[in-house]
Amino acid sequence: MEMTLDAPLDMHLHLRDGEMLEIVAPLSAKDFAGGLIMPNLVPPVTDLAMVRAYRKRIEEAMGEAVFKPYMTLFFKADYSPAFLEEAREEILAIKLYPAGITTNSEGGVKGFDLATLSPVLGVMSDLGIPLCVHGESDGFVMDRESEFIPVYERLAGAFPDLKIVMEHVTTAAALGALERHENLYATITLHHLYITLDEVAGGLLRPHLFCKPIAKRPEDRAALREAAFKAHPKVMFGSDSAPHPREAKEAPGCAAGVFTAPVALPALAQLFEAHGALENLQAFVSDNARRIYGIEPPAKKVTLQKTPMRVPAGYGEAVVPMFAGEELAWSVARAG
Amino acid sequence: MEMTLDAPLDMHLHLRDGEMLEIVAPLSAKDFAGGLIMPNLVPPVTDLAMVRAYRKRIEEAMGEAVFKPYMTLFFKADYSPAFLEEAREEILAIKLYPAGITTNSEGGVKGFDLATLSPVLGVMSDLGIPLCVHGESDGFVMDRESEFIPVYERLAGAFPDLKIVMEHVTTAAALGALERHENLYATITLHHLYITLDEVAGGLLRPHLFCKPIAKRPEDRAALREAAFKAHPKVMFGSDSAPHPREAKEAPGCAAGVFTAPVALPALAQLFEAHGALENLQAFVSDNARRIYGIEPPAKKVTLQKTPMRVPAGYGEAVVPMFAGEELAWSVARAG
Repeated sequence: MEMTLDAPLDMHLHLRDGEMLEIVAPLSAKDFAGGLIMPNLVPPVTDLAMVRAYRKRIEEAMGEAVFKPYMTLFFKADYSPAFLEEAREEILAIKLYPAGITTNSEGGVKGFDLATLSPVLGVMSDLGIPLCVHGESDGFVMDRESEFIPVYERLAGAFPDLKIVMEHVTTAAALGALERHENLYATITLHHLYITLDEVAGGLLRPHLFCKPIAKRPEDRAALREAAFKAHPKVMFGSDSAPHPREAKEAPGCAAGVFTAPVALPALAQLFEAHGALENLQAFVSDNARRIYGIEPPAKKVTLQKTPMRVPAGYGEAVVPMFAGEELAWSVARAG
Repeated sequence: MEMTLDAPLDMHLHLRDGEMLEIVAPLSAKDFAGGLIMPNLVPPVTDLAMVRAYRKRIEEAMGEAVFKPYMTLFFKADYSPAFLEEAREEILAIKLYPAGITTNSEGGVKGFDLATLSPVLGVMSDLGIPLCVHGESDGFVMDRESEFIPVYERLAGAFPDLKIVMEHVTTAAALGALERHENLYATITLHHLYITLDEVAGGLLRPHLFCKPIAKRPEDRAALREAAFKAHPKVMFGSDSAPHPREAKEAPGCAAGVFTAPVALPALAQLFEAHGALENLQAFVSDNARRIYGIEPPAKKVTLQKTPMRVPAGYGEAVVPMFAGEELAWSVARAG
């Protein structure tokens, strides 16, 4: 059995930099036609010279594969209208992080005072630059996303023409907000479709499945699956693939992030097939994103086959993927 | 500032065996007058020859310190009345594990069919042998303890003269059950008084704080603290100190257990003092257990002083305690 995806897109991707970029960029570039590249480097990507230089480093690391890195800026409340107008030509979106909420987010937004954020958000709305948000409060870890929903709703109500993407949603509650505001959208990761907190901490503790936002309850996963399997028109695939070296994961303080880029399409095919939803995979991994972002990715067909993929124990000897050492029912047959 | 505790007791203690026993037994024996020793060895402690041999190994590992190991048997539904009558002289309690719910619990109880358990529970009730229970269902990790409460209540109702100890309670709901059944009691650990899931997984993931039952919500911790700080008469200190080698904790699959024995009294004094509850520490760490179990521990005074304790990074070079490398406000001045 085979299925061919037309221009699969990963709309939330951490490619990192330096050696890690060299390891992981070719893996995304092999299977996907493009991806939305997160800007939380150290220092974060906050000007156009940094955007251009990072895009160049990505393109050099990708190898020969056809892959379009859609670039983002790290949200700052003091971006000028002139800067944003120029930036529009170089980026697809701006990513907003609450300060300190996840890896390399220390320079993010403190508090969500609309008066402070409004000048930039107003210009983004006028220019049609979507806002991507890591939506978590600083509350109890299981409540952070649901506590942030009022912020999403306040932003969506104040800027009805601004496209706001709730990134890597993990709860039924967040999906509920999609229905209340026309301008709210969401990405869903691979790992949140597969796991709950049980897989992270219900048996042995699994650092390679530890991520922000943390995986939630079974009923939350069920809601995410329902939205993905029917390819809810406001929902896109975004892996949030977030590699760390093994020594940063198997440690007394384990960094947050699940590395899924090289297994994403086979694992999605396996899950969608198991739930009779293969026919909607194309919309989930490409069509919805094209429509929501108004993009036309490079021509690329990726053919999946129902032939097992043996997932490596690690890439570059030090980066452990989800499903390391396991077998997935599907694999990528060819792409181009 | 000093305070002297009279015969502090740790009513839930894992001393392990072999090399680990050699490392950890002296640390408990130094600070405590006695402890209830958990039987989940491999194989579990299920006959009196094993009880005697394990007690002997513990006493040899303890060194010169005054410390009474109160022994337990691993619950089996097929213990005979004659065996239990003989066992009563050698053990203080019997520990029941649901099968597979925590470290070395594979031989535990499957399902909680009263008809199957009743013969042994009836004899235990008649003989006055308390039942200690690891009370977790096999459900979602955050719900396991609250889902088990109906089992506690069924057992407590069916055997009103059997003392049942809900071990290492982590939820407000479990404490609520104490009020509904005269014969229900509880132990509370050090780490569940200190941490919630936020400390385990809210920042970086902390494998050395990963335990079963997993730390719960802030409101649960508040309820545990309230019960401990007032030394609720049905609540006892039980550390559930559960050492693992470092390589079993900082690993792709991290074993459950927090190693707290060597820091327990200083950390309790620090916490109780911070909440104005030092006057109730004696009842929490000794008097309640003496009354509930009807025991008279060996004479031993342990004096704590408000002089900092620098917690070692590890014991035996391989076992990492809670608060490793940190400073506690109190330390043990002398014991004897």
